[in-house]
Amino acid sequence: MQAIQVGLLGIGTVGSGVFHVLQRNQDEISRRAGRGIEIRMVAARNVARAQSVVGAQVQVVADARAVIAHPGIDIVVELIGGCGIAKALVLEAIAAGKHVVTANKALLAVHGTEIFAAASARGVMVAFEAAVAGGIPIIKALREGLTANRIQSIAGIVNGTTNFILSEMRDKGLDFDRVLREAQRLGYAEADPSFDIEGVDAAHKLTLMSAIAFGIPVQFDKAHVEGITRLSAIDIRYAEQLGYRIKLLGITKRVDEGVELRVHPSLVPAKRLIANVEGAMNAVVVQGDAVGTTLYYGKGAGSEPTASAVIADLVDITRLHTADPEHRVPHLAFQPHTLSDAMDALPVLPMSAVVTSYYLRLRVVDQAGVLARVTALLADAGVSIDAVLQRAADEVGGEGSTQTDLIILTHDTREGTMDAVIAQMQALPTVLAPITRIRKEALS
Amino acid sequence: MQAIQVGLLGIGTVGSGVFHVLQRNQDEISRRAGRGIEIRMVAARNVARAQSVVGAQVQVVADARAVIAHPGIDIVVELIGGCGIAKALVLEAIAAGKHVVTANKALLAVHGTEIFAAASARGVMVAFEAAVAGGIPIIKALREGLTANRIQSIAGIVNGTTNFILSEMRDKGLDFDRVLREAQRLGYAEADPSFDIEGVDAAHKLTLMSAIAFGIPVQFDKAHVEGITRLSAIDIRYAEQLGYRIKLLGITKRVDEGVELRVHPSLVPAKRLIANVEGAMNAVVVQGDAVGTTLYYGKGAGSEPTASAVIADLVDITRLHTADPEHRVPHLAFQPHTLSDAMDALPVLPMSAVVTSYYLRLRVVDQAGVLARVTALLADAGVSIDAVLQRAADEVGGEGSTQTDLIILTHDTREGTMDAVIAQMQALPTVLAPITRIRKEALS
Repeated sequence: MQAIQVGLLGIGTVGSGVFHVLQRNQDEISRRAGRGIEIRMVAARNVARAQSVVGAQVQVVADARAVIAHPGIDIVVELIGGCGIAKALVLEAIAAGKHVVTANKALLAVHGTEIFAAASARGVMVAFEAAVAGGIPIIKALREGLTANRIQSIAGIVNGTTNFILSEMRDKGLDFDRVLREAQRLGYAEADPSFDIEGVDAAHKLTLMSAIAFGIPVQFDKAHVEGITRLSAIDIRYAEQLGYRIKLLGITKRVDEGVELRVHPSLVPAKRLIANVEGAMNAVVVQGDAVGTTLYYGKGAGSEPTASAVIADLVDITRLHTADPEHRVPHLAFQPHTLSDAMDALPVLPMSAVVTSYYLRLRVVDQAGVLARVTALLADAGVSIDAVLQRAADEVGGEGSTQTDLIILTHDTREGTMDAVIAQMQALPTVLAPITRIRKEALS
Repeated sequence: MQAIQVGLLGIGTVGSGVFHVLQRNQDEISRRAGRGIEIRMVAARNVARAQSVVGAQVQVVADARAVIAHPGIDIVVELIGGCGIAKALVLEAIAAGKHVVTANKALLAVHGTEIFAAASARGVMVAFEAAVAGGIPIIKALREGLTANRIQSIAGIVNGTTNFILSEMRDKGLDFDRVLREAQRLGYAEADPSFDIEGVDAAHKLTLMSAIAFGIPVQFDKAHVEGITRLSAIDIRYAEQLGYRIKLLGITKRVDEGVELRVHPSLVPAKRLIANVEGAMNAVVVQGDAVGTTLYYGKGAGSEPTASAVIADLVDITRLHTADPEHRVPHLAFQPHTLSDAMDALPVLPMSAVVTSYYLRLRVVDQAGVLARVTALLADAGVSIDAVLQRAADEVGGEGSTQTDLIILTHDTREGTMDAVIAQMQALPTVLAPITRIRKEALS
């Protein structure tokens, strides 16, 4: 079956991410989608630069309308941003019967009602997972995963720039202006950062989540929007002393009289997971009456994280267009006829082949030379030591004890190697009890 | 349009949760699904008790096969558990052309290949969001949200019982046996807890996630399964001293030679979010090559959290059966014709109507009576104080300073009230600078 044909409007950071990820993972993506997904045309202001990104096989044009009008294009991906030309192009794509995928939160938060109505009338989809919280599939979670619930509230860190600035202000004790300049230098904040630091970007995203959660139209004009520009380092410090962190939260909440819709800096108890979301990361906490509290965490921006969301939308649309009705989403994500081949290519490994690091505890005789003997065995086997903790004997066994605990953290080692070394250590007469071995995962 | 008709096999904890949530949220759920979802028949061993749960309108039978065979039933929800009769019933439901929703991880981890093949051949769906991590929509995230990615690894806390036990062992310094008995007394562990504490339940769930992530068949028999029964309090303490927490993790990882599939206790750096998932909560960390690290957190068990996942599957199936192809999932989750009515019923509130708590910082003259004056204004307005922090003047303004900072945390207050009090406080001659007001969110 021919690949589904995609046209990109704009090929900046996100667009090139979409192109590269689709290329790199094309086998897996088509095994999941049941069909290939191919970028066929790109519209870009700078045609030559765009052509150098996508190579000669992809047609690059300067006129976005040529992409929309092309009869071979099934899906138009709008990555221009803003509410000007992007709005006109999205409406034209809809009118031309094309599905649209967009990362444009401003457009949908402000003109969503008009755009979604046009799409419904024309029988096409406007998918926008990438518009909120980058690669985190939060739109899907709210729209599909939590459909059983009366949603009670959403609170999210949905702007990475401001979260990065707040993390830096806290870590370094610096005031807003100074950290902003640093963030701009590092590329975490734009030259004109006002949409981010004034809370507008977060409010766009919050408006979309609020509409989905509560079944109301998008109403960005009614959001309370307050940024972080007036925050000072001293308030961050005082908050810390009181057991809180300050985060720029988008909060939408259902109360008896209606819906709260507000973006502003907020004190959050330091022990909450969301209070510990640092740097440019995003996180959204959703409370539902059945599910209770759930949290979604990940990168909220960047080329490939955002591309991950754009492509998820492309796969959703492709699945809807291609498979027979009962199998749009395969049970195990991949088309079933591809599973057994994959099993041969990707066998489940025996535990002895696993590479990880280890915590070892040895109950040993408290005498000179024991540690040397143990570490020599590890060295002979090529196991590299990360840390050693040796307890005082009386701390472990009480006063006058002649036993102690030796704790060793290793670097990455093959499990089979570790089994052999443990057997050797266990045979030492100075090792008095079965050795405890617990695996250690960095989870980078 | 007639509601879609559901038959429940089993109505214990999860089944009654499904029944109650469907009843309580029926308006919202049908606005989302485009159609009502109705439990029409229930099969239960104890018919009288089941009848008392569902009331007289729902037919309760002792014979599960009567539910499967009933021509009016569109979807069969299997909540019996285990691999015995449940397997036969699921296969019979499929053969009868019914869609199946199940929370049965053991069944799918062991017999998934056979069951999914039967479902595909018959053209029906077997949905199982509730089988992994309860209310967290992790199956949907892996199967749809992250389709762009080559998944690199998954590491999850997917068994609440063992995480509760480990949290208690750490908090109280007690050994496994003692905490297990306490957990059984509190209902966090079953009378026969072996599936949980030996890691089998976690391995069932991990097997399903691994298959979805890597595009391989379910292969529970190849999983390495190790529980927490041999963990001692002393290792938890030593790990803590070294900067780690011990969690029972299910880990599946793609490496060059194949796939790792292993459940065992693991040391995790204490600063990782997943290391701070406490009690009976679940969390899953997924690494994809495009999206980077994402994390999903929530309740992994319990009546209504699990029901939330079962109903999400019911809505998915209903949407697929009902709506026109392009609008299976409405843009804003709810059927568009219902949005404007909802806007009237649920207006976005002005900020003055928002109720939250506050952090206030007042730069004041360092003299007697200032705090009394400020707190009197708050008291007069009915604002209740949670905490006060007053800094020493020389700490704030340097030696010899006559100014200091007064920080007040309030309890919940209406924003309009707070605006008025702040204006009054601002007018005090002892208040020297614009008052800082930052909202505070408990995020319970």
